[in-house]
Amino acid sequence: MKAVAVQRGETEPTLINIPQPTPNDGEVLVRTLRVGIDGTDHEVISGPHGGYPEGADYQILGHEAVGVVVDPTTTKFSEGDLVVRTVRRPPESGSTLYFDRDEPDMAPGGDYVERGIVGAHGYMSEYFTSPERFLVPVPESLAVYGFLVEPISNAEKAIEHAFAARSDFEWTPESGFVLGNGPLGLLALAILEQDRGVYGRFDRTYCLGRRDEPDLTIDIIRRLGSTYVDSRETPLTEMPGVHEPVDFVFEATGYARHVFETVDTLAPNGVAVLLGISEDWSFGIDGGRLHREMVLENKALIGSVNSHVDHFEAAKESLSAFPHWFIDDLITGVHAPEEASRAFETGDDIIKTVVEFDTL
Amino acid sequence: MKAVAVQRGETEPTLINIPQPTPNDGEVLVRTLRVGIDGTDHEVISGPHGGYPEGADYQILGHEAVGVVVDPTTTKFSEGDLVVRTVRRPPESGSTLYFDRDEPDMAPGGDYVERGIVGAHGYMSEYFTSPERFLVPVPESLAVYGFLVEPISNAEKAIEHAFAARSDFEWTPESGFVLGNGPLGLLALAILEQDRGVYGRFDRTYCLGRRDEPDLTIDIIRRLGSTYVDSRETPLTEMPGVHEPVDFVFEATGYARHVFETVDTLAPNGVAVLLGISEDWSFGIDGGRLHREMVLENKALIGSVNSHVDHFEAAKESLSAFPHWFIDDLITGVHAPEEASRAFETGDDIIKTVVEFDTL
Repeated sequence: MKAVAVQRGETEPTLINIPQPTPNDGEVLVRTLRVGIDGTDHEVISGPHGGYPEGADYQILGHEAVGVVVDPTTTKFSEGDLVVRTVRRPPESGSTLYFDRDEPDMAPGGDYVERGIVGAHGYMSEYFTSPERFLVPVPESLAVYGFLVEPISNAEKAIEHAFAARSDFEWTPESGFVLGNGPLGLLALAILEQDRGVYGRFDRTYCLGRRDEPDLTIDIIRRLGSTYVDSRETPLTEMPGVHEPVDFVFEATGYARHVFETVDTLAPNGVAVLLGISEDWSFGIDGGRLHREMVLENKALIGSVNSHVDHFEAAKESLSAFPHWFIDDLITGVHAPEEASRAFETGDDIIKTVVEFDTL
Repeated sequence: MKAVAVQRGETEPTLINIPQPTPNDGEVLVRTLRVGIDGTDHEVISGPHGGYPEGADYQILGHEAVGVVVDPTTTKFSEGDLVVRTVRRPPESGSTLYFDRDEPDMAPGGDYVERGIVGAHGYMSEYFTSPERFLVPVPESLAVYGFLVEPISNAEKAIEHAFAARSDFEWTPESGFVLGNGPLGLLALAILEQDRGVYGRFDRTYCLGRRDEPDLTIDIIRRLGSTYVDSRETPLTEMPGVHEPVDFVFEATGYARHVFETVDTLAPNGVAVLLGISEDWSFGIDGGRLHREMVLENKALIGSVNSHVDHFEAAKESLSAFPHWFIDDLITGVHAPEEASRAFETGDDIIKTVVEFDTL
């Protein structure tokens, strides 16, 4: 079967041919429909993130997949069920505590592999197998865009953790600020613009980028009802003066200075949740002032990575509620596996791309 | 009546004579028994914290008081009731939202004054008045040590906020690390060593200091069942290798580098709560690595200041459960108002001092 992989020593994806996998009992054979590409995939190819499966000289890419059950073996699934899958898997050796708790997103480094990212093959192939517990059923209405459930689930987890961190007092956030206008940032912004029971809705949202107009992402930001903030004109530290101090920050840039600048961006009692993956980078800060500000104004910084099945369920709900135009505008390219290298191109006219193996 | 105050332009407390206050209806007149002194009082006299009441050329010190109701006026209190009081009061102008919510500890700067700290006189006088809602009744068993309810309440709030920040997953912390062996640090350590229903009990605790043995605080740390960590031998960043990465950090040093070093001290999914008040101080950090570490290991940093009535209630419970030897060893000096300057002395043989105005 066809698969899209990166070979050791190379920095471009290539199409390879490998045997179709056979499911064991308790596993499900899935026919892949679509696999989304995000910043992590680019980092896996050439960045601070990721690692080949042990002993392999290539890694199959992709961790955002939607597919159809072909062979359910002994599982609860039926042939034809539509599914998406979680990313983390138990390690060859090490603790499985967090998997036993169904919270693999909280497992420490070394106690997991991540399919398509660290130490395990991904889903960018015509078929893949998965244990039952790592598959989440989705309705047929998500056959085309279901691959978005995985990235949305990461935002759902991060937002949940941020709200939990403010749950010991009466927190009534009005303003939310997404740092980064990449796919994850835009998906998070769409969540903040939703009118959801649990979180209510932010009265005012902002999204940070560094693009000139006209620009596809700025159009989306505005159409969502949000305000675009150009970091070249309005550094984070000036956000309170130019717009307002914000109650909630969702960091999705991987730009480490933002972590520390965001203390000034936050309103009293505010929380910033961090999702970007930075490379090593030393710089100076006024650590004394930041410390004092965090204490005297009860501010919080929360790191968040990955997600588990509950967050996938929340993500299904969000995705189903997103306006259709938003998803249409977000997906800027659908590519056959044979043209995978095109799917990995970047540019100001590209937001999110997909490799399509098949349709329902 | 006698009062201990700091005069504008001076950096030593002095005894002054001022008229005894008269309570209005809804206020309570309290005869002061004891007022504790902590790091904040020293900062008020000569540090980064505090400010005189508007128009006053002196500030009465003290924010940790226990006293007896002398005149309850129209309130629910009765003559002879023992009370402690909270610190924050509504400002002359500004929002009273957080006072209306009974969460004044979450009010932003400018929306409160703090008796004995910022913009209002403290309690270090023979009598003081207070609105009913800012007084917390305590049992007669706390007549001597009830002034400790206020500092303990700050630790209770901080610990609550930290646990809330980890409430969205199954967090089972085993190790706690208090940074700082001052009075607040030791009180926090005693809380962590308690077997309390809500938090369980930490299996292993550590307390950071920079003292040579023999030392009073190191003796207390050991007798509490905790391990002393000398920061000159074991910097925070080496804590995981020398002892272990810790699930929970309670920062009570006001040393800003600790905020950033603590990211390395924390175990995966760990949380650090920050209470120290730093002065401006610029230094370099590997911000990229810290950012990545916080994200990939789900770590959290939480600032926390002050407390409200619920935390005072929790503090009463903790204080009542503390071993008697601990309190005895913690209080290294009880001084009459006339010798207040002695109560403000510092040194390695001094942990916590008290000004005693009267006894029950």
